[in-house]
Amino acid sequence: MASSSSSLALSQALLSSPSSGHRPSRRLSLPLFSGLKSSPISSSPASFSRRACFPAAPLTRALPSVRAAAVETLETTDTVLVDKSVNTIRFLAIDAVEKANSGHPGLPMGCAPMGHVLYDEVMRYNPKNPYWFNRDRFVLSAGHGCMLQYALMHLAGYDSVKEEDLKSFRQWGSKTPGHPENFETPGVEVTTGPLGQGIANAIGLALAEKHLAARFNKPDAEIIDHYTYVILGDGCQMEGIANEACSLAGHWGLGKLIAFYDDNHISIDGDTEIAFTESVDTRFEGLGWHVIWVKNGNNGYDEIRAAIKEAKAVKDKPTLIRVTTTIGFGSPNKANSYSVHGSALGAKEVDATRKNLGWPYEPFHVPEDVKKHWTRHTPEGASLEAEWNAKFAEYEKKYKDEAAELKSIINGALPSGWEKALPAYTPEIPADATRNLSQQCLNALAKVLPGLLGGSADLASSNMTLLKMFGNFQKATPEERNVRFGVREHGMGAICNGIALHSPGLIPYCATFFVFTDYMRAAIRISALSEAGVIYVMTHDSIGLGEDGPTHQPIEHLASFRAMPNVLMLRPADGNETAGAYKVAVVNRKRPSILALSRQKLPNLPGTSIEGVEKGGYTISDNSTGNKPDVILIGTGSELEIAAKAAEELRKEGKAVRVVSFVSWELFDEQSTEYKESVLPAAVTARVSIEAGSTFGWEKIVGSKGKAIGIDRFGASAPAGKIYKEFGITAEAVIAAAKQMF
Amino acid sequence: MASSSSSLALSQALLSSPSSGHRPSRRLSLPLFSGLKSSPISSSPASFSRRACFPAAPLTRALPSVRAAAVETLETTDTVLVDKSVNTIRFLAIDAVEKANSGHPGLPMGCAPMGHVLYDEVMRYNPKNPYWFNRDRFVLSAGHGCMLQYALMHLAGYDSVKEEDLKSFRQWGSKTPGHPENFETPGVEVTTGPLGQGIANAIGLALAEKHLAARFNKPDAEIIDHYTYVILGDGCQMEGIANEACSLAGHWGLGKLIAFYDDNHISIDGDTEIAFTESVDTRFEGLGWHVIWVKNGNNGYDEIRAAIKEAKAVKDKPTLIRVTTTIGFGSPNKANSYSVHGSALGAKEVDATRKNLGWPYEPFHVPEDVKKHWTRHTPEGASLEAEWNAKFAEYEKKYKDEAAELKSIINGALPSGWEKALPAYTPEIPADATRNLSQQCLNALAKVLPGLLGGSADLASSNMTLLKMFGNFQKATPEERNVRFGVREHGMGAICNGIALHSPGLIPYCATFFVFTDYMRAAIRISALSEAGVIYVMTHDSIGLGEDGPTHQPIEHLASFRAMPNVLMLRPADGNETAGAYKVAVVNRKRPSILALSRQKLPNLPGTSIEGVEKGGYTISDNSTGNKPDVILIGTGSELEIAAKAAEELRKEGKAVRVVSFVSWELFDEQSTEYKESVLPAAVTARVSIEAGSTFGWEKIVGSKGKAIGIDRFGASAPAGKIYKEFGITAEAVIAAAKQMF
Repeated sequence: MASSSSSLALSQALLSSPSSGHRPSRRLSLPLFSGLKSSPISSSPASFSRRACFPAAPLTRALPSVRAAAVETLETTDTVLVDKSVNTIRFLAIDAVEKANSGHPGLPMGCAPMGHVLYDEVMRYNPKNPYWFNRDRFVLSAGHGCMLQYALMHLAGYDSVKEEDLKSFRQWGSKTPGHPENFETPGVEVTTGPLGQGIANAIGLALAEKHLAARFNKPDAEIIDHYTYVILGDGCQMEGIANEACSLAGHWGLGKLIAFYDDNHISIDGDTEIAFTESVDTRFEGLGWHVIWVKNGNNGYDEIRAAIKEAKAVKDKPTLIRVTTTIGFGSPNKANSYSVHGSALGAKEVDATRKNLGWPYEPFHVPEDVKKHWTRHTPEGASLEAEWNAKFAEYEKKYKDEAAELKSIINGALPSGWEKALPAYTPEIPADATRNLSQQCLNALAKVLPGLLGGSADLASSNMTLLKMFGNFQKATPEERNVRFGVREHGMGAICNGIALHSPGLIPYCATFFVFTDYMRAAIRISALSEAGVIYVMTHDSIGLGEDGPTHQPIEHLASFRAMPNVLMLRPADGNETAGAYKVAVVNRKRPSILALSRQKLPNLPGTSIEGVEKGGYTISDNSTGNKPDVILIGTGSELEIAAKAAEELRKEGKAVRVVSFVSWELFDEQSTEYKESVLPAAVTARVSIEAGSTFGWEKIVGSKGKAIGIDRFGASAPAGKIYKEFGITAEAVIAAAKQMF
Repeated sequence: MASSSSSLALSQALLSSPSSGHRPSRRLSLPLFSGLKSSPISSSPASFSRRACFPAAPLTRALPSVRAAAVETLETTDTVLVDKSVNTIRFLAIDAVEKANSGHPGLPMGCAPMGHVLYDEVMRYNPKNPYWFNRDRFVLSAGHGCMLQYALMHLAGYDSVKEEDLKSFRQWGSKTPGHPENFETPGVEVTTGPLGQGIANAIGLALAEKHLAARFNKPDAEIIDHYTYVILGDGCQMEGIANEACSLAGHWGLGKLIAFYDDNHISIDGDTEIAFTESVDTRFEGLGWHVIWVKNGNNGYDEIRAAIKEAKAVKDKPTLIRVTTTIGFGSPNKANSYSVHGSALGAKEVDATRKNLGWPYEPFHVPEDVKKHWTRHTPEGASLEAEWNAKFAEYEKKYKDEAAELKSIINGALPSGWEKALPAYTPEIPADATRNLSQQCLNALAKVLPGLLGGSADLASSNMTLLKMFGNFQKATPEERNVRFGVREHGMGAICNGIALHSPGLIPYCATFFVFTDYMRAAIRISALSEAGVIYVMTHDSIGLGEDGPTHQPIEHLASFRAMPNVLMLRPADGNETAGAYKVAVVNRKRPSILALSRQKLPNLPGTSIEGVEKGGYTISDNSTGNKPDVILIGTGSELEIAAKAAEELRKEGKAVRVVSFVSWELFDEQSTEYKESVLPAAVTARVSIEAGSTFGWEKIVGSKGKAIGIDRFGASAPAGKIYKEFGITAEAVIAAAKQMF
């Protein structure tokens, strides 16, 4: 790799020049846009059934307006090795699934050719440092086909996928779980499996690249410059989240996003004809994408190469390369059927497939020439990174401030003292909605956190999420930080996961009404699972939103997220608690935070603090002594005020009353036993909680002798105050409940 | 309406003939497909600002391939009255929002013309019987604009929306809540507000019509024959659920679905240019819809009429009529801006709008000629229903069995003894997965329940949901009952809501993996809120699914639905409990049931029963006396077996152990105090629960001295048995926990 002098040149030279002594020489002729027919198939064994090998191209879905990919001509010697490499990938997948007796061989067998071209010929990465910043990103949105990616990573030399890892596919503690998991397998960018998430993640990755490139690249130093590749299948295409995200990708003109659509016409229920007959090509043209059709994805390597070259030439639009493949390609009796999708082939069919594809090797064997062919990626990857490091060193000399800022985004270090930017509040400051206080925090943080960016699902003026010092992230202004997601909650969440997982220092936030977390719950769960520290700014967090009524009023949502692993569910009560919630959210880069915020005004209460929030639950006022109050009143968010009012009344009657803010159950759970006892002493069973949401789960806090005041029905359309009264979310109710305990 | 002789003729005659003496006579000339330009605007006041009245048509989104709607010519006298009616609708909306000081005036002001044409000229309904079976269905998918529908229903004579109801818009206890709610307002078909749900509901309504028509219509008796109309906005269009459902509508060829897309170029964040620049027309053509563009939706009545006529002529595709409108039409200073979307205009702007549109009347006033014009809908509606009743009587004579079956679908009466069809199980019957037992129940029920239909989101062979006696519901075979939803969980749920709310006797079920309820949670919540008794068949309900790993393993899902109001969350343990869960699900027509079912085999346990399931929690075995067991072991679903095993061991050691199956918390909660005490006596605090899911909420059942065994982390990819062991979901753990309590 010594001949190449810059990573920019590298990225553009990959298709057109031999880049290494290890690579067989080849003569390239690239009649792009030539409209030639598919090249003759090079190596299909005689015994291969025509049905399995050449499924009728689904012509009903091809549109005249979509140009088939142009064809390149390669020397045969090269193609023979490529064929062998592709079959290696196929059999690694077949063998691993067979050994586990569990998994999905069909996709890897069909997608091995595009996988090979991507990992062997196109993508820039360093297998020995999967975290090298300027690597191309790859996302397998059709995550069930993960053996494709594991096989490719194995060949490419990633330490996370050695032979023993392939052999322990889907086993306890292995690095090769049943779907790609970024937190298990270095080199896997995001966690996929739930369909449609991956393509949206990829759009987040591509957004991050475009944003950072616009902010940090200089005319003489294109320091950020990578592509994002994704493979998605019919299942992803059917999911609404994919359409949401792809509509945004088109809107944003993410030209460096290249998506391969594995068009194999088979899903679990059989032929896609039974449920999926739309024209994907037309839809994507409507979404503003460039669309290319590779008719022969089974071994039309040149078609695939040409399509990628064409996609790279289109700089103002993302590209969808529809690659028609045969699921389970090579299996004489199961190819092109759903039976090869999600089960091991079985010993007999594995044998038949070995015969059919002329594969004489033992399970898990990588032929020497294939192994040798791929070895170059280790030195090449090291060179790529070294060159980039050198380039960055140059950049750092010329652009010191930018380099420092970019470094913090690359390594995730927060600027020292950043938390001092958070506003502080006193009870004298007029009441305000926590959504407004949230906006103050966001805008204060935007000044000190270079990686903060985000936006709302078309509710910026309700969620109060605009960063005033920045403009809108748009196709022509990608350096800006206000992202306009449109009414696409699910896509928004998954895009933010992609942003968060692009670079440790990127801190994406996104917003909608709290009740509409229902639209994006699958993405939030992936945030939690994949350790993506997205900040979810969720306003209008209870019946307190009033007239919009029960469709808009969350009830069960707090409980539902408290039950979800690795999520911080925060419900601040006022200014200090909102600032505390942001402090917690920013610090927790490996788990998402959900901030439930009010539409209605709330007073700044005496006793609230950032430090209190960090402990999850804490006493805001207490007139008892010896850790023995007569009653403990517990509130969260907008109801903490009610608990405080009730306490005042009870104290007037001579009672010793403690008021506890329970802003985050998860954080409280993590405190020491001593601390917990100091807030909620076991001996004090007289406890009343109040929260304008489901009481589900509150028994844990109030105990069987306590009382949880909440709402276990749907809301209603009326002014907020009226609903609070009618539903009994009042100080009177707290007082009455407390009095029954004395 | 005496002159018309059949409802079929009626449906087709509405546009082309004067149908009532109350209607001003008019001469119609219908040069369909003529390509004429918009007719001259009839009554725009001189002071009307050009910007508000004629927003530049967003030409970038118009495609040459989409034909603009053809234009009809009407006599001016007619148009003047129509204008007046349209302005009445606008001002009823303006006035109601103003009085409530809350709501969304913008959409009603822009959509009043299409609303008028629909309710006054096109739709067949009986305002005095909103439940008349063969009525046209209307869905306001852009539910925030509900004052449009309330105003139309008020004019049309629905008793649910009288003047006082308009005046109590968005107030406690009113019939005019902040978004359309079918359970509050007779005449509202479904509950909308959360964007995208309504269009998917409408697709469910249209599916139901197509299905029932195919099953019950005869060559000489078209007894089922109605259209489904829907208005959706930019927000709905952006939501993924809408794309999912619309892809299915195109696939199914729902020719009697006519959707109006209120193309006003404004959403809450401002001009849709900031986030929504795709070509909706092209996308819908890709989805297989017929697309028409009405350029002037503000007063191009003839264009709207012609578009509907054209849409009706296209019988094999659903139609999207893109109607370009001005949000807040008529407001001189706020039209065409987001400020008119979701807030009252304010007194000053209301005055200015009255002047601008030449509206001299008091708030809530309906001019006499407008009122008189609309009065005909009461007798006409009565006639429509009477004619249909007569037709049905004829049908009943000729087709007795079909008529009886259809009647049961119309009135929701279950056939007597239907529950006897449910299979019964004994412990001798080999172990089986509850997903397989579920299939036995579904197939048994399909024989006795004429309204049962449904399917899976591309997992039929995993969810085990195929009805063997039926074929696939498809464009050409709509009489069949296996619905193939593709990988579109969210759309599936919302479509099922539409099916359920079409007719009380339709019992839709739908299926996916339990974890993917996350994709469809917003639709499930609407099932619960709108009292749609959908049956959710959710298989692969725990870590018991094994190798697919944490992306596919539900953890928090049971808790999250137990917290949701009006949902029955059922987790049966074996054959009898699965049958019991189906009994409960079928009986509960006004709340959805979610069945969590295992992938893995489970033994048929002694002591389980349908009757037990109906009580939610019950004792399956007990060797104690006097309601004083030493310990109570509580399990659900696949872990009930574990509890039973632990009990056996403990009993061997001389302990008095009760085993309780806790299949549905909600049903148990509804039992008498005595019954609850008989199962979980307050005095027995030694309680151990075991469930392969979050322990969140279990404190309520086991109490503070009890122990909840569960999983409060994400799952793992490995064989199921291994995960159970590693996570401590074992009989040994139950025994150890119990022993700590003795």
